Amino acid sequence: MDRRKFVSALGLGLGAAALAGCGQQDCDKPEAGDAEAKSKSEPKPQTYEWKMVTTWPKNYPGLGAGANRFAKRVEEMTAGRIKIKVYGAKELVPAFEVFDAVRQGSAEMGHGAAYYWKGKHPATPFFTAVPFGLTAQEMNGWLHYGGGQELWDDLYAQFGLKPFACGNTGTQMAGWFNKEINSIDDLKGLKMRMPGLAGEVLGKVGATPVQLPGAEVFTSLQTGAIDAADWVGPYNDLTFGLQRVAKYYYYPGWQEPGPTLELTINKKVWDSLPMDLQAIIRYAAQSENQDMLDEYTARNNAALEELVNKHGVQVRRLPDDVLAALKGASDDVIEALVADNKEARKVYDSYRAFRDQSVNYQAVAEQSYMNVRSQLEKGDKKA
Amino acid sequence: MDRRKFVSALGLGLGAAALAGCGQQDCDKPEAGDAEAKSKSEPKPQTYEWKMVTTWPKNYPGLGAGANRFAKRVEEMTAGRIKIKVYGAKELVPAFEVFDAVRQGSAEMGHGAAYYWKGKHPATPFFTAVPFGLTAQEMNGWLHYGGGQELWDDLYAQFGLKPFACGNTGTQMAGWFNKEINSIDDLKGLKMRMPGLAGEVLGKVGATPVQLPGAEVFTSLQTGAIDAADWVGPYNDLTFGLQRVAKYYYYPGWQEPGPTLELTINKKVWDSLPMDLQAIIRYAAQSENQDMLDEYTARNNAALEELVNKHGVQVRRLPDDVLAALKGASDDVIEALVADNKEARKVYDSYRAFRDQSVNYQAVAEQSYMNVRSQLEKGDKKA
Repeated sequence: MDRRKFVSALGLGLGAAALAGCGQQDCDKPEAGDAEAKSKSEPKPQTYEWKMVTTWPKNYPGLGAGANRFAKRVEEMTAGRIKIKVYGAKELVPAFEVFDAVRQGSAEMGHGAAYYWKGKHPATPFFTAVPFGLTAQEMNGWLHYGGGQELWDDLYAQFGLKPFACGNTGTQMAGWFNKEINSIDDLKGLKMRMPGLAGEVLGKVGATPVQLPGAEVFTSLQTGAIDAADWVGPYNDLTFGLQRVAKYYYYPGWQEPGPTLELTINKKVWDSLPMDLQAIIRYAAQSENQDMLDEYTARNNAALEELVNKHGVQVRRLPDDVLAALKGASDDVIEALVADNKEARKVYDSYRAFRDQSVNYQAVAEQSYMNVRSQLEKGDKKA
Repeated sequence: MDRRKFVSALGLGLGAAALAGCGQQDCDKPEAGDAEAKSKSEPKPQTYEWKMVTTWPKNYPGLGAGANRFAKRVEEMTAGRIKIKVYGAKELVPAFEVFDAVRQGSAEMGHGAAYYWKGKHPATPFFTAVPFGLTAQEMNGWLHYGGGQELWDDLYAQFGLKPFACGNTGTQMAGWFNKEINSIDDLKGLKMRMPGLAGEVLGKVGATPVQLPGAEVFTSLQTGAIDAADWVGPYNDLTFGLQRVAKYYYYPGWQEPGPTLELTINKKVWDSLPMDLQAIIRYAAQSENQDMLDEYTARNNAALEELVNKHGVQVRRLPDDVLAALKGASDDVIEALVADNKEARKVYDSYRAFRDQSVNYQAVAEQSYMNVRSQLEKGDKKA
């Protein structure tokens, strides 16, 4: 997932849906006919009809599905007092105007990823993912019990927005290659589609990062215009058909270890809401934050199996020296990102402290457990 | 966490709170005085006052805090239409009567863990945790996108209950020891507090599992009545003071890799609710399911650091041969659990299929990423 993927995906036939009016909805206008008597004695509670603009193609698997589920949950929980119409990228505004559309109030809500707004403020990437940073579980721990949410609130308040974590893909894959990567030399001169901070990192180790809309990834790999490409992970990559134009599927996704998706709300709209509706939005976002990760966890499992067993994809781990070089370059890129901005530095310090503690803790927790489990599994297979 | 811990914790001074009446609450009775005119023209929506019995001591850190947060969220989102009073273990019913109390309707809701009800049905442990089973993220994937919730619904419907995942501690620790465990021989004859399925597993490898209320763990370790004990993880163990009576803290928590806590609702109550209130309960549970894991993730990080740096605890990994023996014994114990029950076998088959797929997937996802990250971290420290 990156700045270009959703733009690209629009080219896959996921066209703009017709914009629906207020017709089927529960507007503020008094009801006529049978309901008239009732509406006289029971003033209806205020209702809201909102637009939610997203950086994803309408109904895009995983990401767009999460935005749809969030909207549905709010409508269910409020018994229709809040109705949210979800717009795919380009339906109301282009993907990269979601942040501004919500700030300015032309839409009440947005769903996307904070690192798309790096041009607005260098601190934003820490609220999605940075290379060699936090996993999904760690991001949630940092945001909700490590001070991250407060820093995010402060940052976005300056832009007139209230942010929530609302989805996560889990650890992504490192990408698709048409040759084996056996050392750092194999990256030199390699044209690889890789956007954003991770693209800068690739550039520092001698590769040539290419900015490319996702819809062009398939063709560009097929024609040899690029040598390699990152996308999301097994579930999304399989539906894109990348296994048909690249043989080697590398891991782990050093560039996006657990990207958090964001829900943004115009702060004036947020501040004007009664407490119960604020609570519904808050917990709808948190429940969807988990649900999307649940979906990716289950569907990636199944998709990886299909890629390997049905399509013969060769799964490879990036070599140690390549990963070490990428890590060194990542530290430099992040350091440069925060160098001239006190607020970005403050966010990074908090993020980094949590990360360092978690690296130590994971050595005895999930990470250690999963290592033991897979080691024993191999033992079972040998026996 | 286990069948005894909460009973024990009650001995720590967390006494029974006074039972509050309906006084401060928004009852169905028409309001008097100033509100009279208003109540004539606005029939109030139905309100509910529920009891939630829990298997935890009132306000127990992590587990009890999660039950409290869930209740608070429902009250916030319904603007007080549902008020839930949370009772600690023994306040209304003992911990192990929570399941029956909710079935029979003496309380509308319960919060606990499904594996406490193994005596009711052998399939229940799979909805909390089994040795060498699923992590928190995997449990959520299996429950919500792998068919687990449907199996759980079917199982609990037979008992008149509707279940939801509502909290997770993450991977626990293997426990506290007063000597090093260097081989399987060091476990022979070792008296270790370890309840449930994991206790059976220990017995099979030559140790002596001891069933012991948690409040007695500290004293029993101090006097040498037991040689070792499991509890939860750094956050809960530190507050219990176990570092004062045991030197070695072993990992990983093979016995509880990601235990799911459960919310149960009396099925008649559940079925009678309007759709909006059902949705609020569903998503309040899912949001709390994530929130508790977030809290443990953040607080375990910090507590482990304190245990090591301030209290000089020696952190050790269980040796390979010990883990292999425990895994073999665990497979036997689980096989025996499901051997004579078709429904339990069906649940295990589903759980096991998801687990096997996930072992393969994690080798390229979070597990692989965290291994790379810690390997690079060590490299950085050496450099």
